[in-house]
Amino acid sequence: MRKGEQTRQDIIRKAAPIFNQQGYAGSALSDLMRATGLEKGGIYRHFDSKEQLAAEAFDYAWQETLDARIHDLDIIPNSVDRLKQLVANFAGRRGIIPGGCPLLNTAVDTDDGNSVLRERARKALRGWRAYLISMIRAGIKAREIRPRVDASKLATLIISSLEGAVMVFRLERTEEALRAVQAHLETYLETQVRAPSK
Amino acid sequence: MRKGEQTRQDIIRKAAPIFNQQGYAGSALSDLMRATGLEKGGIYRHFDSKEQLAAEAFDYAWQETLDARIHDLDIIPNSVDRLKQLVANFAGRRGIIPGGCPLLNTAVDTDDGNSVLRERARKALRGWRAYLISMIRAGIKAREIRPRVDASKLATLIISSLEGAVMVFRLERTEEALRAVQAHLETYLETQVRAPSK
Repeated sequence: MRKGEQTRQDIIRKAAPIFNQQGYAGSALSDLMRATGLEKGGIYRHFDSKEQLAAEAFDYAWQETLDARIHDLDIIPNSVDRLKQLVANFAGRRGIIPGGCPLLNTAVDTDDGNSVLRERARKALRGWRAYLISMIRAGIKAREIRPRVDASKLATLIISSLEGAVMVFRLERTEEALRAVQAHLETYLETQVRAPSK
Repeated sequence: MRKGEQTRQDIIRKAAPIFNQQGYAGSALSDLMRATGLEKGGIYRHFDSKEQLAAEAFDYAWQETLDARIHDLDIIPNSVDRLKQLVANFAGRRGIIPGGCPLLNTAVDTDDGNSVLRERARKALRGWRAYLISMIRAGIKAREIRPRVDASKLATLIISSLEGAVMVFRLERTEEALRAVQAHLETYLETQVRAPSK
């Protein structure tokens, strides 16, 4: 990697927690300078605008978050067990970047505003849903999941209930909501989603 | 109401959608001046600080939102039917102020920052949970709800999954997530929460 590209990645990595904690409007240039140890010119040599830096920082933060939520799923053979592990990873906030879930933060931060960032958040949500839907459909095909389960609705339910629990967690600073939603989804996956064993 | 108090309430009412859409850091004085039609001095004659105005605006926005979600529940005799109507009101986004759910917005906006606003959001969440818990406990007492239902966990599940669906709705601008969560909760309330009829 060229030195310029290294510096660029370093800026993204250090800016990500700032944007994730303070939001787009709340992240001042002075905060970004403090976090990166660079002057204004040193930052904006690598990015066209604050918006572009925020978009790259979001992509980075989301990728880190997603990786932590799914990195250990491949070794689990059964798709319902994979879904349960994914829920557990999510509820356990594995590898989460400071500030909480970047998707929740950026969705709420940009739903009435910044269209570039909003588009990144939409893309993240679409990718995340598509990943879950594909896992569920594979499970149906393998007869591990009941054939009448609606993959799209189940994916939406998992994402919505966990992201909402993150909101409660962020406010209350107790894991109660995450654990309650995890327990609910686990029971639901076992009793309504898993195909009865033959 | 005295004229000064009328003006104060008018400022709160007009500032609420600004803060709800743009967040605390993203709401500039110029936005508040445009929305209220007042100069800086005209606004800050009534409030000690932007923080105080934002806190009052949040309380107003939340009260409006909560009223819309619960105003028609009292006439419904059965507690499970009341919960279902509450879910339907929430999913139908009845009377929601521009910018989406003030609790979700303010929770995410302030979880790493403004402690006064964060405290208002925590208070709103606590009140909202307590309202649900009390409704569920009354239902258990009246034998409309199964005695082993955990009122606190059920309240948390309803709030988390609906608030998460609002996040998806705000990003996607389709009601799919709200409807999926509503359908899930309705089925759950009917099959796992409602006491079997004797």
